Amino acid sequence: MTAPFSSIAEFKALLSNLPNADKTATAAATERNAQLTKPPAALGRLEDLAIWYAGWRGEAAPVIAAPQVVIFAGNHGVAARGVSAFPPEVTAQMVMNFQAGGAAINQLSRCFGANMTVEALELDRPTADFTQAPAMDEAEFLRALTTGWNAVDPAADLLVTGEMGIGNTTPAAAIANALFGGNAEDWVGRGTGVDDAGLALKAQVVREGLARHVDILADPIEVLRCLGGRELAAMSGAILRARMQRIPVILDGFICTAAAAVLERAQQGTLDHCVAGHVSAEAAHAKMLKHLGKEPLLSLGLRLGEGSGGALAIGILQGALACHSGMSTFAEAGVSDG
Amino acid sequence: MTAPFSSIAEFKALLSNLPNADKTATAAATERNAQLTKPPAALGRLEDLAIWYAGWRGEAAPVIAAPQVVIFAGNHGVAARGVSAFPPEVTAQMVMNFQAGGAAINQLSRCFGANMTVEALELDRPTADFTQAPAMDEAEFLRALTTGWNAVDPAADLLVTGEMGIGNTTPAAAIANALFGGNAEDWVGRGTGVDDAGLALKAQVVREGLARHVDILADPIEVLRCLGGRELAAMSGAILRARMQRIPVILDGFICTAAAAVLERAQQGTLDHCVAGHVSAEAAHAKMLKHLGKEPLLSLGLRLGEGSGGALAIGILQGALACHSGMSTFAEAGVSDG
Repeated sequence: MTAPFSSIAEFKALLSNLPNADKTATAAATERNAQLTKPPAALGRLEDLAIWYAGWRGEAAPVIAAPQVVIFAGNHGVAARGVSAFPPEVTAQMVMNFQAGGAAINQLSRCFGANMTVEALELDRPTADFTQAPAMDEAEFLRALTTGWNAVDPAADLLVTGEMGIGNTTPAAAIANALFGGNAEDWVGRGTGVDDAGLALKAQVVREGLARHVDILADPIEVLRCLGGRELAAMSGAILRARMQRIPVILDGFICTAAAAVLERAQQGTLDHCVAGHVSAEAAHAKMLKHLGKEPLLSLGLRLGEGSGGALAIGILQGALACHSGMSTFAEAGVSDG
Repeated sequence: MTAPFSSIAEFKALLSNLPNADKTATAAATERNAQLTKPPAALGRLEDLAIWYAGWRGEAAPVIAAPQVVIFAGNHGVAARGVSAFPPEVTAQMVMNFQAGGAAINQLSRCFGANMTVEALELDRPTADFTQAPAMDEAEFLRALTTGWNAVDPAADLLVTGEMGIGNTTPAAAIANALFGGNAEDWVGRGTGVDDAGLALKAQVVREGLARHVDILADPIEVLRCLGGRELAAMSGAILRARMQRIPVILDGFICTAAAAVLERAQQGTLDHCVAGHVSAEAAHAKMLKHLGKEPLLSLGLRLGEGSGGALAIGILQGALACHSGMSTFAEAGVSDG
């Protein structure tokens, strides 16, 4: 399929005409939930998740049979500023690791029956250093959005978007700062493990980036282009495509959530088809989720990216839907309902 | 197998000679973890879980291939005091639902590949009302412990113990109060949904129970016999058997944790092979976990019992071990380690 946009204006226009969850399916799932053999609300958040998922899938009692994990990889001009504990060549090395099946996300995808694909985005051409120029020109940005859009399998029934990109907590922090305000220090963290000096440098780089692009900070899509990276833009494209296909999305960590937040700030409600899979050890992630009104499913101190926290949460959603769609009703089981 | 105890004294004696995790396997797993293709500690708690599990299984890189969920059902004399929102016949009805595959725990067990078994414990003979007499006499108590012991499959590599028993949050609260002190009000909750009057009644029943059995409150095993129930005793027996077989255990909610806590209070360290699968919406569960020093893996507002929260956490452990044992090392993958 060709993506239904060939300009940034056309991409933005999609946001004003989004499909919604199916109200009939939501109502039918709510009614079914009330009849299942358990005390009211005894499955807690699993019940809310099942009803939410049923609404997006347009079925009263769906199951999760075809989850997809897609990982986007990109390289960053700002990595040359020394904002990561790892050298940039690790991005390409990890893409090979993904392709060979050796990374954490491979194991988690297999564990929860997800089909995993990898998209490496022009790794030999890092984005521009955003303290000097927009990270991407319009053509580069559109290519990345389109790669994300096209990477989504329309037959998937759940999507996790992950990423790999040495240095990419810095563009994610810059985006968060641009979208949600505050100081650079509020949004930078230790990423894969920088020291105090590295942390101060990240804040400095974010400050320079925002100062350089002060004119576009009120336009979230331009923020993504000027301060982001290809894998971030691709995640935004994939998350929007999933919305168009009514495929529920599990958000991963800090980078993924920054890419998603761009859509929400461009058009409120765009992330209604998304849940937060986990809250990362990267401290600013919790802050970003709070701004988005998303309560994470898991809090296990992960800070790997790759979609790992999102993939781990697939099991929670599968469990929720297995209960919702597989349990007997009080009438079916001959159990007294109190 | 015949259980290696035929008296309460023999059961207690087992606690003083417990097998431990294999230090060699723990060290080998720790070393392997440090070489995997991820920044140090980037998988957060999954790394600790994997190393812990490896130690108990005595292997540097195990996987979880044969999880077992066992559900024990019992009826309670105190149910006649009106401490539950559901009538006692629901215990037997739910056992039939478990056997027919219609309950939440059936779906969750299937979802995570666990073999599920059900043990109904003399449902037609409720325990004595503990405000009047010991819940179980010695012979009844030993039968329940033995049922639990024998229910564990020695070939399982992970165990979740669940329960069903109308009224059983009240004995669990009484046990917790006896083990950890405080007031009855600190330990009772709404269970499957009692109102304010029901809550006050539960506290009153717990107070009466502790007053009736004041002489044995310093002996945790006697607390289990006098204030507990058959499904609680069976869970204690199963959790101890798992320790003997070095089978790691995921604790479920309030009732399961009360049964486990008895072992820990009888002999500190007895629950070293256990993790807390989740923290229940039953408020006193968090308090009990804190006393036990167990940080729950999940917090999703479940309050169903049946092993449901424990079973949901199987996926987290499976994910942790899939990463630990399936990932490539930096050397294997040709990735620079920073």
